[in-house]
Amino acid sequence: MQTPQKIAVVGSGLVGTLLAIYLKKLGHIVHVYDRSPDIRTVEFSGRSINLVMSNRGWKTLQDIGLEDEIKKIGIQVDKRGIHLKDGTFTTQFYGKEGESIFSLSRGVLNRKMIDLAEEAGAEFFFNRKIWDVSLANASLYEGETEQGEWKELKYDIVFGADGAFSRVRHRMQRQSQFDYAQEFMKIGYKELHIPANEDGTHKIDKNSLHIWPRGNFMLMGLANLDGSFTCTLFMPFEGENSFENLKDEKTLVDFFAEYFPDTKDVIPDLVEDFFRNPTSYLVMTKCFPWTHSDKVALIGDSAHAIVPFYGHGMNAGFEDITTLNEMILKYGDDWKTIFSEYQKSRKPNADAIAELSRRNFEEMSSKTADPKFLLQKKIEKWFSDKHPEKWMPLYSRVTFSLQPYAEALAIGDFQNKIMEEIMQFPDISHKWDSPEVEEKIIQLLNVK
Amino acid sequence: MQTPQKIAVVGSGLVGTLLAIYLKKLGHIVHVYDRSPDIRTVEFSGRSINLVMSNRGWKTLQDIGLEDEIKKIGIQVDKRGIHLKDGTFTTQFYGKEGESIFSLSRGVLNRKMIDLAEEAGAEFFFNRKIWDVSLANASLYEGETEQGEWKELKYDIVFGADGAFSRVRHRMQRQSQFDYAQEFMKIGYKELHIPANEDGTHKIDKNSLHIWPRGNFMLMGLANLDGSFTCTLFMPFEGENSFENLKDEKTLVDFFAEYFPDTKDVIPDLVEDFFRNPTSYLVMTKCFPWTHSDKVALIGDSAHAIVPFYGHGMNAGFEDITTLNEMILKYGDDWKTIFSEYQKSRKPNADAIAELSRRNFEEMSSKTADPKFLLQKKIEKWFSDKHPEKWMPLYSRVTFSLQPYAEALAIGDFQNKIMEEIMQFPDISHKWDSPEVEEKIIQLLNVK
Repeated sequence: MQTPQKIAVVGSGLVGTLLAIYLKKLGHIVHVYDRSPDIRTVEFSGRSINLVMSNRGWKTLQDIGLEDEIKKIGIQVDKRGIHLKDGTFTTQFYGKEGESIFSLSRGVLNRKMIDLAEEAGAEFFFNRKIWDVSLANASLYEGETEQGEWKELKYDIVFGADGAFSRVRHRMQRQSQFDYAQEFMKIGYKELHIPANEDGTHKIDKNSLHIWPRGNFMLMGLANLDGSFTCTLFMPFEGENSFENLKDEKTLVDFFAEYFPDTKDVIPDLVEDFFRNPTSYLVMTKCFPWTHSDKVALIGDSAHAIVPFYGHGMNAGFEDITTLNEMILKYGDDWKTIFSEYQKSRKPNADAIAELSRRNFEEMSSKTADPKFLLQKKIEKWFSDKHPEKWMPLYSRVTFSLQPYAEALAIGDFQNKIMEEIMQFPDISHKWDSPEVEEKIIQLLNVK
Repeated sequence: MQTPQKIAVVGSGLVGTLLAIYLKKLGHIVHVYDRSPDIRTVEFSGRSINLVMSNRGWKTLQDIGLEDEIKKIGIQVDKRGIHLKDGTFTTQFYGKEGESIFSLSRGVLNRKMIDLAEEAGAEFFFNRKIWDVSLANASLYEGETEQGEWKELKYDIVFGADGAFSRVRHRMQRQSQFDYAQEFMKIGYKELHIPANEDGTHKIDKNSLHIWPRGNFMLMGLANLDGSFTCTLFMPFEGENSFENLKDEKTLVDFFAEYFPDTKDVIPDLVEDFFRNPTSYLVMTKCFPWTHSDKVALIGDSAHAIVPFYGHGMNAGFEDITTLNEMILKYGDDWKTIFSEYQKSRKPNADAIAELSRRNFEEMSSKTADPKFLLQKKIEKWFSDKHPEKWMPLYSRVTFSLQPYAEALAIGDFQNKIMEEIMQFPDISHKWDSPEVEEKIIQLLNVK
């Protein structure tokens, strides 16, 4: 057991809140600060992408006894539902039977988590702006404005769970020997909305993650509990098919009629949603180190903000907590070692899920509409069903296993090389499930 | 001609000062701010690597009529002087006869440049701390401390020439869509000193850039006008041969006796220098965009801090000025276009010299002691002498030509692939200048 410490968590998002629950259960005094109002008191919509929870996230909730409670507010999603331009709708299962991810509304989940953290005894301080932190002695500096007067708040340990533009990291960035990178994507996103039917049911299959793949842009939709869907249009800011070019009502309506004809009946407020909701940016950030002595640690997006195309931002952040907790159980009161082992263990995995997420945009937005890619997936699934001990597809490794992301990425790259060779196999489209192909894959697996 | 503007340059380093001269000659009001005291009034030593000026830097000085004046304070360096561990000393000429770079002391050059800028009419404000800038209207915010009261200083245009940790860039970093990366090297450096002989002459050849290549660490030395040499020890912070391990006098003296035996007589104050001078960090930074509308632009290290191993930090910064000036001459008062064309033209070249500089550590610290590498260089030189229109070695492209860095890098990579093949040629160490090798190179050049 640990000696109780006075701990501040900066940021009341999903990771900060779940971390607060863990720290309370360990016996610490926990104060959570957020510059924004309490999300339970404000409307939350207009700039969110729905979340998906997969095994890594569930593992972290399970370890603290919250899995069942959260599952109640999620919707099982076991497949991609692909809407082609010609109106065809096809599905691709994500894993084996019974394997699924869960669609969760960010607002709903975050409110629930704050309730749970308060029940656990964490204290929340909303509308409190933390501008700076002293790394040497874990003090926070709070004030109305950045340039105004600040008050010092003393703690034993500070966690920066304050997201991609973390102020805690901002202080660390100004230390020597701190590596940091931020990169904005050329693709932005906008939230759209499919309302529920009058009887509260969903207008389209609620157990699919819907994708309208259109090459360098796509629409996607994830179900909410209330029968609605949160949709997200991902598209370049500039260029031929871009946000820049969808300037007026007519252009927008024509564009959707051309590229997403089957959304006409299900997105009734397209024009209003589109011009009211902001066009949001996507940013990737990387940094190292994540911790300072036994005083300060980054966790979640503040340490590794990724793009949403694998649905792993929250899962990776929750897995940070699992690793941190492992180190706490292992090293007791030695916070210096806890922090250094935590960052050492997580950094390569955070880099790997960042890379996987970046790559997955292309898979979602164009490959899912490519017959050759679909055949490749079919072969992988067929082989994996026959030889589960020899082949787990990359998506399953990342989403349904707890294998470290870095290992999943490395094995995925190896498997992909094999599949590239297999796709060159003569007459592969007919021979795809032949003994020769099976044997060839086994042979290639053995030349590691 | 341009309409006179009120322009602030933040930073009185080499690039800021030369930029001020250019802007004065164009008729603007120019104020240069620096948080440090006037370098002309303080001792400058202990943490500097000597500079080398090559053709790109000279071109920028020449265009404004300052080349001759600055050449007076430089020392021609036409070769590498390589000190092997066994005491052998060999040389490698950098280019053709008459081609050389110039060694310059940073302090001497910077003082001279400030004098010249003042003569040109630029006003300097030292000990003035600029904490922030308003991008929308080119105001600077100045104050004693970051958290204290600030004064607004209004300008038409602001240049951030304030180095790798630029405050001007710091403000841009907090804009959306600003890509930024900083990476600290695992190698640090420390300044050492070879004093002049009593009669003011140099103790070792002043026209060589001296290198003591020792694998993952090295010592180098560049001559000063006063007969002394500024030496720099580059070494990992941690590990077997590292700064961390050179903790006491005995370890240090033994280490130098083992690895740099021929420095014993020429670095008399080794122990004092070593423990007095700081161990400095090396950082690479990249960012984009470099400019904001027609109001603010980054230039030099603030836009692209690189490692010193190609000797091009200053040259690249001066070349920024050449490009900026080209755009000014082309677009007159249209500063928005000047800035956007300037950054568009320079960004790929800044990325290229960053990459070239990073790679050159290995070339300097280990390849210069590798017979295979020396043979490769000899073949390149032989072929280039015979076919100057077909082959200019990479070093010459970067240092003695004005070809854009990005082109030099691309062609260098192509040439390197050819040389890799040539080095596989049977019995290459004897056949290196044979007609077959000559023909093979020509053949490989043609399969582009």
